[in-house]
Amino acid sequence: MNLNFEIASGTKVIFGRQSILKLGEECTKLGMNSPMLLTDPGLKSSGAIDIVFESLDKAKINFQLYDKVEANPSDTSIVDANHKFIETGCDSFIAAGGGSTMDTAKAVSVLYANGGKLSDWYGIGNILKSSPPLISIPTTAGTGSEVTNSSIVTDTKLQIKTTVRNDTMFANIAIVDSSLLAKLPKELAAGALMDALTHSIESIGSPKSSPWTEALANKSIELIGRYARKYVDDRSVEESADAISLAATLAGRAFGNTGLGIVHSLAHPLGAYHQLHHGTANGIFLPSVMKFNLPKMKKKYAEINTLLSNDTNNFKNQSELERAEDTIRKVDELARDIEIPKTLRELDITKKNLDVMSKDAVESNQVKTNPVPATEDDLKKLYEQLL
Amino acid sequence: MNLNFEIASGTKVIFGRQSILKLGEECTKLGMNSPMLLTDPGLKSSGAIDIVFESLDKAKINFQLYDKVEANPSDTSIVDANHKFIETGCDSFIAAGGGSTMDTAKAVSVLYANGGKLSDWYGIGNILKSSPPLISIPTTAGTGSEVTNSSIVTDTKLQIKTTVRNDTMFANIAIVDSSLLAKLPKELAAGALMDALTHSIESIGSPKSSPWTEALANKSIELIGRYARKYVDDRSVEESADAISLAATLAGRAFGNTGLGIVHSLAHPLGAYHQLHHGTANGIFLPSVMKFNLPKMKKKYAEINTLLSNDTNNFKNQSELERAEDTIRKVDELARDIEIPKTLRELDITKKNLDVMSKDAVESNQVKTNPVPATEDDLKKLYEQLL
Repeated sequence: MNLNFEIASGTKVIFGRQSILKLGEECTKLGMNSPMLLTDPGLKSSGAIDIVFESLDKAKINFQLYDKVEANPSDTSIVDANHKFIETGCDSFIAAGGGSTMDTAKAVSVLYANGGKLSDWYGIGNILKSSPPLISIPTTAGTGSEVTNSSIVTDTKLQIKTTVRNDTMFANIAIVDSSLLAKLPKELAAGALMDALTHSIESIGSPKSSPWTEALANKSIELIGRYARKYVDDRSVEESADAISLAATLAGRAFGNTGLGIVHSLAHPLGAYHQLHHGTANGIFLPSVMKFNLPKMKKKYAEINTLLSNDTNNFKNQSELERAEDTIRKVDELARDIEIPKTLRELDITKKNLDVMSKDAVESNQVKTNPVPATEDDLKKLYEQLL
Repeated sequence: MNLNFEIASGTKVIFGRQSILKLGEECTKLGMNSPMLLTDPGLKSSGAIDIVFESLDKAKINFQLYDKVEANPSDTSIVDANHKFIETGCDSFIAAGGGSTMDTAKAVSVLYANGGKLSDWYGIGNILKSSPPLISIPTTAGTGSEVTNSSIVTDTKLQIKTTVRNDTMFANIAIVDSSLLAKLPKELAAGALMDALTHSIESIGSPKSSPWTEALANKSIELIGRYARKYVDDRSVEESADAISLAATLAGRAFGNTGLGIVHSLAHPLGAYHQLHHGTANGIFLPSVMKFNLPKMKKKYAEINTLLSNDTNNFKNQSELERAEDTIRKVDELARDIEIPKTLRELDITKKNLDVMSKDAVESNQVKTNPVPATEDDLKKLYEQLL
């Protein structure tokens, strides 16, 4: 047991179907007079967040819409949103979308509050000025960004995905309403779900994992094990959408306190160089990285076996190692069942950029909290297996 | 599954042996210039918190000592501490002690920030003015008060224990360092531990319980099941003191989001009328209340059976009800093993005040979050069984 750890204060969570209807009153309670509502163009045009607009209109909240959030948001898009925020006299943020939208809002809030260039605030920083109020509203069930204090942005000059992270960046409130998932495309639902599963599995492998964060991560894994297939099959069903929404937020709270591992180190460069969806990239790497980490993770992987499914055939005759290997098989099987690609080859991603991606991967923060030390060569081999 | 719930932002937790040495720097980070350090006279003279003084001196924090905290703190003691706080120009609070000390600090902070009489703020209130910074340092491993937003105070005129509760009352930081428990008397350790177990068991019974709070409460129950006896036997052993400290804080985070049940309704009047130690009172009532709640709690009590101990004799042949009943037996056995009195009779508590205690109990907030509705007559009978 790791019994030296910290748990951040963190974001207040309002969870449940139709909790989005509380948005207007929560804005008022936080003293938001003219929030900027951030979202991405696809989400807006899909009608999936019409209820967000309605809730704000009903409470007579005079918001400024910013619907130009990018996937894998770039530093230049953060600067653009910040200009709009200042120009239109906004005083607070509402982020309704996936990780890109919530991360954009957090990054803009840092730039607005602290000035300078965004790159001044890269890393796990010494940001002292507190951000304006923020309400986060996840619409993909996966990133956990609604409850974390970090933002992943793409530096367009350096061509890397990097982190801005500080306790001033926690949203004041996350409204997690699984009815917003009903229109989410199946492929995005599956990718986001693998992101959440990766968060939980990487969290329990971190040296900063504690019984506290493990309780949250394990509950998240259990909910994913039970409800993932039903959820991806139909995102409008209440029980499974609730379960996966909760799993994603729990995973966010867990990894927000522990950090992640090399699945994320490997996935980020694929976002930066190949615009691959982050959750899908995680889903592709997760089984091979679990194999790589197995020597240090036998006990914990064995423990989560029955959380992923109750299929305990021959359980009594299995060693801890066999049970742990069976856990990796179950994760792989889940990825197949929800149609996550098995390799990067299938996605026509070539070996171009392999060297620079391996270099970026080994320099990522997540290497430090991976249970097994990974060299640039290890990471390159993990890429090569799938290219 | 209850999937409509809220999780508060809550207190940042710094957990671990020697984490108390960070106190000084945390005070500085919070901008505390002249904190009032609250504690009780017994704790101060025992030397158990000398390290708290040392940490503050080392960081040159100029604190004002207030060592007159009462057990079951009265409204008049809150007023007294508030006068001292104003008189000496304090700007913040450090509470080093058990629930009484931490609850005193929280109540004083409300009175200081909002003025008026303490009774103006009874209940789950509309307190709007934020409190000065507070760092809580639990020294009994039980109450969870280090991470909750409530304060239990005794109104000396009305002769009731009542609650002041508001999100402004969360400590900014809880420093949970189990090395502070080394000198805790065995009897207090056992009583506080039963308080923590009661918090977790009442939390999972609350209609506000969710998979999130259950994950925390169940982990707490598991740690208590594994380490309670070792811990009570010797509070200076690191592993078990860490485990029980964590169990108590996890239970606090769980019940802080769910509320409690009628064990607490029954225990509070015994504090108000008979000055019985709160945790001990909870420990006395817990098994009988579990029997009372059994009709609604079969499934959840059955689920926590193996968390309390791995003794699964005849498990396969047991029905859910039998397993749940066995859980109650295990709780009772644990209370016996750590020498919690079995009845109030043993403590020479008579039937005097029985009617007024039953009336106070039924009017308590905790009745509302008990899984089974309880009438005044039910509560009276639960008292009578043990008197």
